[in-house]
Amino acid sequence: MPHDLTHLIAAEVCGRTPDTLPESVWAVVRHCLLDTTGTAIAGAQEPFVQALRQELLDQGGRPESAVFGAAQALPSLSAALINGTAAHALDYDDVNFHMAAHPSVAILPAVLALGERLDATWADVAASFVAGYDAGCRIGRLLEPSHYRMGFHGTATIGTFAAAAACARLLRLSVEQTINAIGIAATQAAGIRAMFGTACKPLHAGKAAHNGLFAALMSARDFSSHPHALTAPAGFAVTHSHDLNLDLALAPAPNRGVFLHDNLFKYHAACYLTHAVADAAASLRDELDASPEDVAELNLVVSTDLDTVCNIAAPRDGLQLKFSVCGVAALTLLRRDTSRLSEYNTDIVQDPAFTALLPRIHVVFEAGREKTVADVTLRLRTGRQASRRADSGIPMSDLDAQEARLKAKFSGLVSDALGNSACEALLRQYDALTPETPIRVWMKAGCHHA
Amino acid sequence: MPHDLTHLIAAEVCGRTPDTLPESVWAVVRHCLLDTTGTAIAGAQEPFVQALRQELLDQGGRPESAVFGAAQALPSLSAALINGTAAHALDYDDVNFHMAAHPSVAILPAVLALGERLDATWADVAASFVAGYDAGCRIGRLLEPSHYRMGFHGTATIGTFAAAAACARLLRLSVEQTINAIGIAATQAAGIRAMFGTACKPLHAGKAAHNGLFAALMSARDFSSHPHALTAPAGFAVTHSHDLNLDLALAPAPNRGVFLHDNLFKYHAACYLTHAVADAAASLRDELDASPEDVAELNLVVSTDLDTVCNIAAPRDGLQLKFSVCGVAALTLLRRDTSRLSEYNTDIVQDPAFTALLPRIHVVFEAGREKTVADVTLRLRTGRQASRRADSGIPMSDLDAQEARLKAKFSGLVSDALGNSACEALLRQYDALTPETPIRVWMKAGCHHA
Repeated sequence: MPHDLTHLIAAEVCGRTPDTLPESVWAVVRHCLLDTTGTAIAGAQEPFVQALRQELLDQGGRPESAVFGAAQALPSLSAALINGTAAHALDYDDVNFHMAAHPSVAILPAVLALGERLDATWADVAASFVAGYDAGCRIGRLLEPSHYRMGFHGTATIGTFAAAAACARLLRLSVEQTINAIGIAATQAAGIRAMFGTACKPLHAGKAAHNGLFAALMSARDFSSHPHALTAPAGFAVTHSHDLNLDLALAPAPNRGVFLHDNLFKYHAACYLTHAVADAAASLRDELDASPEDVAELNLVVSTDLDTVCNIAAPRDGLQLKFSVCGVAALTLLRRDTSRLSEYNTDIVQDPAFTALLPRIHVVFEAGREKTVADVTLRLRTGRQASRRADSGIPMSDLDAQEARLKAKFSGLVSDALGNSACEALLRQYDALTPETPIRVWMKAGCHHA
Repeated sequence: MPHDLTHLIAAEVCGRTPDTLPESVWAVVRHCLLDTTGTAIAGAQEPFVQALRQELLDQGGRPESAVFGAAQALPSLSAALINGTAAHALDYDDVNFHMAAHPSVAILPAVLALGERLDATWADVAASFVAGYDAGCRIGRLLEPSHYRMGFHGTATIGTFAAAAACARLLRLSVEQTINAIGIAATQAAGIRAMFGTACKPLHAGKAAHNGLFAALMSARDFSSHPHALTAPAGFAVTHSHDLNLDLALAPAPNRGVFLHDNLFKYHAACYLTHAVADAAASLRDELDASPEDVAELNLVVSTDLDTVCNIAAPRDGLQLKFSVCGVAALTLLRRDTSRLSEYNTDIVQDPAFTALLPRIHVVFEAGREKTVADVTLRLRTGRQASRRADSGIPMSDLDAQEARLKAKFSGLVSDALGNSACEALLRQYDALTPETPIRVWMKAGCHHA
């Protein structure tokens, strides 16, 4: 196998300075920061994140990087581990289909922790994040789809490479040192899908951030690795994929040359495969100005992929509701805020208004359909009806609207966790964030409420 | 696949209290402690271990566990990482063919660091080590030989499970918590053979110790994982082996019920596959009382496996000498101490006595032969000759002789690293070690020379 891929990735990473970022990328990377911070602040309250934080507080160390949910800062390696786990704890963070992973929760906690250690600016952290994001997507395109099918979780595995590349960039490593960091990442990258549904799934993001940061720090200290660790015999690719797509991995990012342009945010606190239905149903509800009692029926046509993932017909609690496409549709028709975690609870699934709606929602599973695409038809008792197609696989093109939507999501998460005034202070901080802002300022604002 | 294996392992681990250890196991586990400490003290001086140690000293933390090569203690997770890497740095530590790995360097640094944190006795640390060792061998028997052939390095991967099991035992976790710790280990276990020849190979041992300890600590804090992570769909075994041997994994240890009885120590500071030749040649040399100039020829019959691993015909430096079966044989005939690292150097391979011997040493590679078995014939110029078979795959049955040999090895390593008086003080400490000795006493003695 040609070894140019690792060199291409490393050269691209090293060349990703702040002045190379187009305006549209700056906007999206800000959105990633806002969204990851919001999910981390909310996730930091989960008991398993508290357990991890307590263990690492007990281990102690130099207070160089802030930790969500703790007044006390910790060493950068510990902060990356805790913050990555917190950010993925609710499974409400962004995704990218090239990387086949949750990119931000693996990469950002690593560059944020390192950025604090180095006293870097937001501009430098942002450019490093974009560099790692591109690296992760190229490696995802190399390994997938067989990597995931074999049983590996890309957030854990590919995320480690992406975090290492991002940190290598922030440390201003040379191309050779960056290749070496990718090697050190390759032999640490781990995470299996059997962990879905356990605390280890969010841990995957934390470990990716931690191990990726470690790889870059050690490469900066001339700790040696294999220069072709990704593609060598007994290397990472051949042990973790059955079908390598080298041409795809070498090709430029399809959306304006930057993979970050295809970043997808989650706006509903439910399984990603319910999102197209939620969007289409909300749009139809508003178009027809329908109240729940007006609804004669709501018909959903979705991919067969949903049948095994989120087809709980009569959800009995909040968790089941998150994996019920009909339940999420009912929540939408009831004008509940599907972006708020607190709306997914046992009370709502027992509410007569909810249970009365469910029998009027019908789902058809269609083979060969994209799993992110839903066709939804709403028919009212008056006979009026309308149809809408939604695709949750397409990022919003209006970045101002995306920011507004992410701010609303952030407000819900953060005001529930920290109260309204802390949430508003953070949003003011977000608006005041410039490329020159030291990243410490943002992290202190986000973490020091504990 | 039946899930009884993880339960069997966990139950066996939890039942491994100090009073269950037979006398012969007590002797071997002491030998593991001595040998791992010696290789760690020597390995701690390698520049890449210094780099790792400096990074983790910079990260800092609670001084709960001693670190080889540093006056300053560190958090247990950092100590496990550094000490495991140091102990494997010279590739001169023990092996086990059931586990298909270097067991002690993955397990001992974890239980030693945790033992200091808990202020445990040597008895408790020793029993925990034996528990982790058994767990690692069972998992090795499940996954191998395909796991290694695929490209994974068992010291890194299987070592993580073994370290987790050992630490679970030392933390007195329940069977369920131990199963959970095995799960947390399963999703961290990583390490590829492409790293051989780089600093990442020794790092594998450190990461196994670190990640295994982390798994047990987090399970103690109720951090959830999959209860059948090893054998589940999208679990560890199916993603990391092509040919699972469940019956073998479930079977008792063949040698008196404890896998530790099959532990193999390295007595020559060269590639393991040269060891049978070195042993047989030394024995013949002494039997015939042969000086180098007496030798007419030395004929070696070994496995074809050696041809690709250690068949450098005319070594040009110390590293090449370690991978030259004829060179190691020549060193033996010259009565040089093959256990000492310092004997493998450029001076010796240029010495006329050495270069004069090489053409008289002939090697025949035989297919189908065990790679640990060598048949060696020494013929003198007088016409006298003798033959000897040696098998480096069989542990020494005379444990007193084994201890004496390990003490000699230890003395060479430690006096080179720390000087004679420090070495002698440590050996006195070793002789004074009892089951009741706090493990801190041993670790302080081994580490606080820096």
